[in-house]
Amino acid sequence: MSANYDPREFKALSFHDATASFRDGADTPRAYLERCLETIADREPVVQAFAHLNEDGAREAADASTARWKEGHPVSAIDGMPVGIKDLLETKDMPTQMGCDAFHGNFPRRDNAAVWALRDAGAVVFGKTVTAELGGSHPGPTTNPFDPSRTPGGSSSGSAAAVGARMMPAAIGTQVGGSIIRPAAYCGNVALKPSQGGINRGERQATSQSTHGVHAGCIEDMWRVAIEIASRCGGDRGDLGLCGPATAPAAVRPERLIVLESEGWAELDDDSKIGFEAVLESLAQAGVAVIRRADNPLVEALEVAVGNGRATCGRVTGWENRWFGRNLVNESPNGVSARYRAGLEAAETMTHDAYRAAVNVRAAAQVHHRAVAPVADAVISLACPGPATPWSGDVPGEPQLPCPTGDFVFNAPSSMLFAPVVTMPLLGVGGLPVGIQVMGQREEDARMTAIARWILETVTPVVVG
Amino acid sequence: MSANYDPREFKALSFHDATASFRDGADTPRAYLERCLETIADREPVVQAFAHLNEDGAREAADASTARWKEGHPVSAIDGMPVGIKDLLETKDMPTQMGCDAFHGNFPRRDNAAVWALRDAGAVVFGKTVTAELGGSHPGPTTNPFDPSRTPGGSSSGSAAAVGARMMPAAIGTQVGGSIIRPAAYCGNVALKPSQGGINRGERQATSQSTHGVHAGCIEDMWRVAIEIASRCGGDRGDLGLCGPATAPAAVRPERLIVLESEGWAELDDDSKIGFEAVLESLAQAGVAVIRRADNPLVEALEVAVGNGRATCGRVTGWENRWFGRNLVNESPNGVSARYRAGLEAAETMTHDAYRAAVNVRAAAQVHHRAVAPVADAVISLACPGPATPWSGDVPGEPQLPCPTGDFVFNAPSSMLFAPVVTMPLLGVGGLPVGIQVMGQREEDARMTAIARWILETVTPVVVG
Repeated sequence: MSANYDPREFKALSFHDATASFRDGADTPRAYLERCLETIADREPVVQAFAHLNEDGAREAADASTARWKEGHPVSAIDGMPVGIKDLLETKDMPTQMGCDAFHGNFPRRDNAAVWALRDAGAVVFGKTVTAELGGSHPGPTTNPFDPSRTPGGSSSGSAAAVGARMMPAAIGTQVGGSIIRPAAYCGNVALKPSQGGINRGERQATSQSTHGVHAGCIEDMWRVAIEIASRCGGDRGDLGLCGPATAPAAVRPERLIVLESEGWAELDDDSKIGFEAVLESLAQAGVAVIRRADNPLVEALEVAVGNGRATCGRVTGWENRWFGRNLVNESPNGVSARYRAGLEAAETMTHDAYRAAVNVRAAAQVHHRAVAPVADAVISLACPGPATPWSGDVPGEPQLPCPTGDFVFNAPSSMLFAPVVTMPLLGVGGLPVGIQVMGQREEDARMTAIARWILETVTPVVVG
Repeated sequence: MSANYDPREFKALSFHDATASFRDGADTPRAYLERCLETIADREPVVQAFAHLNEDGAREAADASTARWKEGHPVSAIDGMPVGIKDLLETKDMPTQMGCDAFHGNFPRRDNAAVWALRDAGAVVFGKTVTAELGGSHPGPTTNPFDPSRTPGGSSSGSAAAVGARMMPAAIGTQVGGSIIRPAAYCGNVALKPSQGGINRGERQATSQSTHGVHAGCIEDMWRVAIEIASRCGGDRGDLGLCGPATAPAAVRPERLIVLESEGWAELDDDSKIGFEAVLESLAQAGVAVIRRADNPLVEALEVAVGNGRATCGRVTGWENRWFGRNLVNESPNGVSARYRAGLEAAETMTHDAYRAAVNVRAAAQVHHRAVAPVADAVISLACPGPATPWSGDVPGEPQLPCPTGDFVFNAPSSMLFAPVVTMPLLGVGGLPVGIQVMGQREEDARMTAIARWILETVTPVVVG
């Protein structure tokens, strides 16, 4: 299979446009689910997106939904939608093994708050999607749906790949550094990484810049899943939680967009740069002003403030995971990868003051981000550093690749800024998807969704290489 | 046993003044521990402060500490200090049963971050102290060390009672509404409830206004335990964590103190009011200006802002615990008390907007609290609404007492304000302890400790009734 993804042709699965047929009986949630299961039967042997499937439970939930639609009383706009759950989140009817040997067979029989909300909204929670080990960088078995010799990205590998392979219309991912947006960008998804705290993480509260988010085939489904969760279980404790309309907000044309060319830009492949500039050119032709670091000292200050974002994110999160990691490794020394152990040992060399310094670097960057709010409607940048990188596993005896699921260099800024970001499948580079993202101020999740919708409706995707 | 506590006479256990003898060999951590165990053997049948004791592990840790002191190389100022751990926190060598039948036998073999830090500092982690069920209001078996017919307060019942009974010099408690300061005040402890986020809660991150804190017999031990933990594992993720010197800060005389007379003041018993006013009179004689709500509109605004604090705290925390609670009750319907189920069901009637409204009430109160920073050095108030209330268990068939561990009315303000607070054993009312607390601005933990030290050194405790 040679990679031949074309963003102008590829049609992802959608759910919202099927619901009219659920009302008149021409289609049913059960039939929708069966089509997903057929695709899974076809693609899963190579894509390997799932850590666990609960087909019986899914069929039962889809039948209940079918009955509700038939009676004219769906409980929500996503009633009957098959949704995959990243295997970091607890689910009462499936194991939660976190891509980690130490959690083999772990089955807490509890629902994460967001999973609880999805079931309450009538969604069909039908499988656990593969995560890189414990949400880190050590990969699971999943392959890129457009080229099995390449990574799907991570750590939300299975969620991104399953949506890219049209196995389901939406899936839940989680991001600390770049774990939703990068795999989504590698796999041709749209995806929302919400404002920090926007969606209730339930039991997964250990780190300060982690969020649940949504992978989907289209903006409408993406937004509906996010808002149906948040309207039921809100944001993280103490946070007001994601706000907005029950269906995706109408398209909004931005007046001005800031282009972020920070860390990672210099090393980017030429084709991805060419593609991105072509999209910017389309935006300019549609009347959107594009502002770069040389144009405005506030933009320059923001570029500098996030200029070492990867290292800042790594230090903050490494420290915050130390106690979880040390407990785990002490209890189960052979239950984690060498990659995980090396990361833990590096974090354990940090002092408390080193952590404080990293948190303050992050807080200062957030100040510089707020300062550009009057400068433009949003920041636009690539969502991944070019197409997905080749990956066929570690070679015993050879040094391990540092980033087997790709580099989160273009995702570190939104993560450390606690900012909402939406990625759009606007580029095909060498036959593989490359995403472009818009990032807003904190709590502007609905606004970024509206701007992304306008861009997707306005700009013709670009193919390069 | 009739209650005959006299704060002028009672001498709590201290540790810091024993360490000189550890250096010259006249005393040892092992001998110190054995004295604690003797007191426990004497008092525990009535006080019932412990959910679990690990005497063998404690003796082993105390012997290792004895060797370090003998060699002149203690690893910290609390090396060898016996410290009790509230049974909500995970400990690798003891079960964590949370005062809840559903967690009977729960033994995760992990150390909470703070427990890990205590061990790293050489402390002797020797027992799990009784908590009210899941940190809520349904009491465990512990009795008040000064009158077994009364509650020790809760939910940190065992930590407060063990320190009050001189079983150990310090213990870890946790507070969401009033679970450290109220039991400490009922049991004659000093105690620090730090600024929100000041001490790393490890796995206990589910709620937005919960903290670990320290119960102790004296200010010096209280501060040393807090800072040794925070210097090793910092604050909650994203927080800069408790800062300050390695030993308790020197006494600081406040120029001005605000008296808080909000919710609960009108219902207070006369003796406690008389005692509190006598302490205020002593402070005035020592040159401290006392400011009340009628003196300053900013103080009046703060009183109004926290005027419904109990309900605000209850709504915020109730919502945040819904998913944990529903999962637990679904899995283990008979594993929780009727009190717990009733609280969960009340929380489940809340809407997301009701939660948002409560969070905003809290945020507004924090604004009003910051506004009084220039008005005074601290706020002073009673730490509990009079002496510990009688409690001898629910009577089958009769309505359940709403607050069997006492009322958190005087603790809700500091909890919702995320403010550091230190309680001092300054009153004896009817032969029982009643605490008085000072509350500062966020991050002023060391400053409140210094002010509490000055008050304890300056004011003669008062006996009434």
